Amino acid sequence: MKALIVGENNTIALTEMAEPHAGDGEVRVKLKAAAVNKRDYWISAGKYPGIVPGVVLGSDGAGVVDETGAGVRKTWLHKAVIINPNINWGPNPAVQGKTYTILGMPTHGTFAGYVVVKADRLQPMPTHLTFDEAAALPLAALTAYRACFFHGQVNAGMKVLVSGFGGGVAHFAFMFARAAGAAVAITSGHERNLVKAKEMGATHAFNYRQQNWIETASMQAGGFDLIIDSAGGDPFNDLIHLLNPAGKIVFYGASNGLPTHLDLYRLFWKQGTIQGSTMGNDEEFKAMVAFVEKHQITPLISRRYPFAQVENAIKEMQKAGLPGKTIVVF
Amino acid sequence: MKALIVGENNTIALTEMAEPHAGDGEVRVKLKAAAVNKRDYWISAGKYPGIVPGVVLGSDGAGVVDETGAGVRKTWLHKAVIINPNINWGPNPAVQGKTYTILGMPTHGTFAGYVVVKADRLQPMPTHLTFDEAAALPLAALTAYRACFFHGQVNAGMKVLVSGFGGGVAHFAFMFARAAGAAVAITSGHERNLVKAKEMGATHAFNYRQQNWIETASMQAGGFDLIIDSAGGDPFNDLIHLLNPAGKIVFYGASNGLPTHLDLYRLFWKQGTIQGSTMGNDEEFKAMVAFVEKHQITPLISRRYPFAQVENAIKEMQKAGLPGKTIVVF
Repeated sequence: MKALIVGENNTIALTEMAEPHAGDGEVRVKLKAAAVNKRDYWISAGKYPGIVPGVVLGSDGAGVVDETGAGVRKTWLHKAVIINPNINWGPNPAVQGKTYTILGMPTHGTFAGYVVVKADRLQPMPTHLTFDEAAALPLAALTAYRACFFHGQVNAGMKVLVSGFGGGVAHFAFMFARAAGAAVAITSGHERNLVKAKEMGATHAFNYRQQNWIETASMQAGGFDLIIDSAGGDPFNDLIHLLNPAGKIVFYGASNGLPTHLDLYRLFWKQGTIQGSTMGNDEEFKAMVAFVEKHQITPLISRRYPFAQVENAIKEMQKAGLPGKTIVVF
Repeated sequence: MKALIVGENNTIALTEMAEPHAGDGEVRVKLKAAAVNKRDYWISAGKYPGIVPGVVLGSDGAGVVDETGAGVRKTWLHKAVIINPNINWGPNPAVQGKTYTILGMPTHGTFAGYVVVKADRLQPMPTHLTFDEAAALPLAALTAYRACFFHGQVNAGMKVLVSGFGGGVAHFAFMFARAAGAAVAITSGHERNLVKAKEMGATHAFNYRQQNWIETASMQAGGFDLIIDSAGGDPFNDLIHLLNPAGKIVFYGASNGLPTHLDLYRLFWKQGTIQGSTMGNDEEFKAMVAFVEKHQITPLISRRYPFAQVENAIKEMQKAGLPGKTIVVF
């Protein structure tokens, strides 16, 4: 089978390798679609801790079970599934353990004809989704689900702001918070994303490239009970400004780097919270898939590539595009 | 009576003024002791929002009720009391409301022979305390209590670090967390404070003036589940380093100013929390006094001044001294 493999010296290449087989407690999934994550980009750029040469990249996948190992229910065979990318979250729901890893490094991932995983990593694919859409879920939707619910405790009537609406995680956070009954505003640097978010029910859509968007947001929307961010950088302090008293910022990344200061004075007087979040535990993965099915949520797809062009898919994922996930199709 | 009054142009002066009397729902307390807070220092330096000339300073006081207004139980008369310095916290336990203020600006405070307050601001003084010790409690112990319990959720077996042990709030946080069964370490820049904290049961005492105290702390104590800080500044990122996975930093001030960056990467991977906190609500004030009585906690007193030297007490509070509160005695 063809697989996207990490080589020596930070190279990635589609390479021919032997098809894997399911061992005890494992299943083999024939991939139908996979999604690209920033993690893949960082690994391909050599900027990720613990890169192991020879490993197949890819954390997100949807496909069909075509082989079951010993001890696995045969009823999984021929089922459409999505794969939980968590490996060894550990016993504490509040935080991943020390041996936690994510599918696709150092374990072989989904950018290949087949992937072998433990049977307990499978979830039946929600029936309202295509394989492409289902493949968009795992890592990004899990991260959004935890940010919204475990840390953000989103509920009906809450005022939520999701920054960087175009992003893979952010667009899920927007849809999840809305489905839970919150009033959700967004920011983006791209006009078409602002329009799209309004079409999808955003209460407000602010362009963070406009110099005084904070004042505009403050006037038009008032403050927010919860802000979900992955940009970091100096605008992080603007988000503190927009926080309601006793409000919370949940962040799961810092793509703009670190803020050059932190407005502690404002934060303690507001009794505000800054909460770090990453991924989600196995219970949350299950709950996320059930939530997507219950609310008939359809992931947005930004770009589609045939699997043969997966290297381009990774290279181009950082370019501005439509909101949502980049997908490779098998 | 003599009272310490804020004048025009950021001056403070002991001034003769008429004795106040208790109106409807109010009591008059003859003060026996009052404590000095950084707030008094900042007001005296003109660096506090909303300074009103002519107001009597002082947020903390203990004394004896000597006059009750209409509608107040006469049984308060001659009782030894401490005064809850909150005014209009409001209905939300999670955060003070917009009209919230603190006794001693803009309402007349405790640096005077008498203070008039609403009867519902009174708590009977714990019987194990002197007036000096009781006067040390209100603002600082309330702040420590909320940091420890509302935000910090301290419980038995938790590993806690309290920075700047010498401070008025910090020494309460140390004692409260210990009383709740936590293993509590401290930092200080003064050797005698380190010694004192060890005598009082600190598991570890680190001198933050030593260049590699973070490495030492990490090696000797491992990480902490909760860190209580009011220093801010760049060491704030060192505290993130010392945080256990899913740990929390509760801070209630930033006496070293703002940090010049914030290590978001480390924070989100740890699923860590930064939680602002200030003061505490009325229920917490009551619970704090009950906690102090239950655990027979005795506040530390750093310096004592006769009331005639209250201006010096305020000026000198920023100087290094013994751990605990600065008290003025009537």
